[in-house]
Amino acid sequence: MIPEEILRSLVLQNDSKLVMVVIDGLGGLPVRGKTELETAKIPNLDRLASKSICGLIDPISYGITPGSGPSHLALFGYDPFQYEIGRGVMEALGIGLTLTKDDLTARGNFATIDENGVILDRRAGRIPTEKNEEICQFLQNEVREVDGVRVSIYPGKEHRFVIVFQGEGLRDELTDADPQKDGLRVKGTDSLTPEAQRTADIVNNYLKKVREVLKAFHPANMVLLRGFSKVPDIPSMSERFKLRPAAIATYPMYLGLARLVGMEVLKTGETLKDEVETLKSHFDQYDFFYLHFKRTDSAGEDGDFKKKVRALEEIDQIIPLILRLRPDVLVVTGDHSTPALLRSHSWHPNPILLYSKYIRPDGVRRFTERQCQKGELGRFPAMEILPLMLANGLKLKKFGA
Amino acid sequence: MIPEEILRSLVLQNDSKLVMVVIDGLGGLPVRGKTELETAKIPNLDRLASKSICGLIDPISYGITPGSGPSHLALFGYDPFQYEIGRGVMEALGIGLTLTKDDLTARGNFATIDENGVILDRRAGRIPTEKNEEICQFLQNEVREVDGVRVSIYPGKEHRFVIVFQGEGLRDELTDADPQKDGLRVKGTDSLTPEAQRTADIVNNYLKKVREVLKAFHPANMVLLRGFSKVPDIPSMSERFKLRPAAIATYPMYLGLARLVGMEVLKTGETLKDEVETLKSHFDQYDFFYLHFKRTDSAGEDGDFKKKVRALEEIDQIIPLILRLRPDVLVVTGDHSTPALLRSHSWHPNPILLYSKYIRPDGVRRFTERQCQKGELGRFPAMEILPLMLANGLKLKKFGA
Repeated sequence: MIPEEILRSLVLQNDSKLVMVVIDGLGGLPVRGKTELETAKIPNLDRLASKSICGLIDPISYGITPGSGPSHLALFGYDPFQYEIGRGVMEALGIGLTLTKDDLTARGNFATIDENGVILDRRAGRIPTEKNEEICQFLQNEVREVDGVRVSIYPGKEHRFVIVFQGEGLRDELTDADPQKDGLRVKGTDSLTPEAQRTADIVNNYLKKVREVLKAFHPANMVLLRGFSKVPDIPSMSERFKLRPAAIATYPMYLGLARLVGMEVLKTGETLKDEVETLKSHFDQYDFFYLHFKRTDSAGEDGDFKKKVRALEEIDQIIPLILRLRPDVLVVTGDHSTPALLRSHSWHPNPILLYSKYIRPDGVRRFTERQCQKGELGRFPAMEILPLMLANGLKLKKFGA
Repeated sequence: MIPEEILRSLVLQNDSKLVMVVIDGLGGLPVRGKTELETAKIPNLDRLASKSICGLIDPISYGITPGSGPSHLALFGYDPFQYEIGRGVMEALGIGLTLTKDDLTARGNFATIDENGVILDRRAGRIPTEKNEEICQFLQNEVREVDGVRVSIYPGKEHRFVIVFQGEGLRDELTDADPQKDGLRVKGTDSLTPEAQRTADIVNNYLKKVREVLKAFHPANMVLLRGFSKVPDIPSMSERFKLRPAAIATYPMYLGLARLVGMEVLKTGETLKDEVETLKSHFDQYDFFYLHFKRTDSAGEDGDFKKKVRALEEIDQIIPLILRLRPDVLVVTGDHSTPALLRSHSWHPNPILLYSKYIRPDGVRRFTERQCQKGELGRFPAMEILPLMLANGLKLKKFGA
């Protein structure tokens, strides 16, 4: 990988259009000899592959299964070890919050404790979501701030919520205020650095108030907080790559990730066609488009091989609509694999194709894991894609004389 | 490569069994068009390759020929540049010594010097091994300690021996007490850091005594010491990877290397079948097995192409015995190449196959250098194998949310 400051010095701006299509959880594993991609009828992707250069990408490195945060950062050209996105931040992005550098977020659980503070049930009997919403509303009204720091609570499903502390100078070097096990006593957060002591005190004062206020709300009579985190200080894609980037996705988390690296989020509808329609109507205004398709991942997580195959076939249908816009560089790949066989994200590399005027098509004729492996791109880290797209868009100067 | 502290945070323990078969000096070079592997009849390895994913590994990096120390560290998942194993330590491991953090080791030569201390022969006329043993015995009895530090001498072949200084706070930042050339005057060791000054004084006092004691032993009337080293402070595989690892090998050096990373050394016999029998009888007690086969390397070092081919064919015979144990993850690879053509270790990458339930077999049907190159694993650093084995054993959590 080229060092960041050198890459920055090579970037130039021009009118060429780059489109990155991310099929979430794209890669799979064989069931009765064939992967989801090998089973699907995807004539448009196959035809595109035969006019492209192909390869396999590792989101992080051999054997490492990435969450959506690090795998997207890599696709956007950022080192996922340099910029870590905490769990609190991911949850906040997932419910569509826009975070600033003054926001400290955490994931929360409602829990049941006894009069001595011993946890009887970390999930408060999995209270129904409506009950959760009701308690969050009450808690929000009772404790709006603590020590001058604003506190906002956003209900999630069942016993879960997201909390945001908003104030200058808050730090996230904090241990979980959650002993992680029933039968242990609730605990406050501890600061991991001297600078975080003030923040720890604020959080712990908040927790004291909450315990008082929630007394009557058995079984949800206490909260546990974990994954304290702030948004990392990431240079934007326009600073780094001189791009005007835009994001098109239907799930808040991916739009949140895109916002973290300075992409403009474009309003779109629910369907694949809506997304492509949005791409079309904004095609003149930006020069980098991140287009995210989610349903392949959901089907993989469900362990539903056939549903993932169908999702791939539907995506295949909209490929000609994208090509009709004549992007200068088109990449189709995945953020990570989600094999139906594993029902989860996995470490397996993803197929990738790159289409532009300046390539030597490599003879790969099917957009599958095992065919792409034979392509010119070989097997390489996802972080290298963005420089390669820039190059194919003639957006990179020569390095050295 | 994933940073060590992140990898550590992802590792979890479960019951899956990982087996790493290391065929020493596996890779070769063509003689009359075919390498040793391409010449050998290895139907079992070929069949296994066709059910596996394959690739080529670089022990260290392009063009670098590794010794057994660094190449094994890489296979065990350690950065060989971070943890260097000195020559003294390697020699000591080679004769089966177990070293602690209080041991300072060096390689020694008996040499011939004149009355002014000028070296006449660095190898003391290559005295016979029995003579060497006799002098070592005498020297051991005459100088058992110096400045409170215990000294132990272990004879090797001809003029060579291993020396161990044992005491608290000894350091290994020392130059060789060996001018490396006939015609130069013998020299003491110099400390390379202030902290090593005391150790240098102790070694030099020892050398003075030895010169006195050996006066009558012409031609072996002096010793030269080089490669002062201590065992590096390596975190064990159980600390790092939460594995219960065991080693099966017939040569002391490999067992010593395995002990350095905290493997349990299992008693075994001389033959390949003995080694597999040992694997079988301990299969329930550990979850990572390092199985080492030596004879391919020896044949390569001898420049005996046919003998290396036969050694490969013998190893092929025991592959079904290993498969019968149903390991969850099986890797077969080499620590480095030893082409008969070169009669030495070499820089060439080694074939590797990885067999598990969670792979997409990649169409490679022969376990050879040139076929494995076409596999899904591509060409990658040996250090990545261990994370990949952990992943395939479902021993790694997701990185990030």
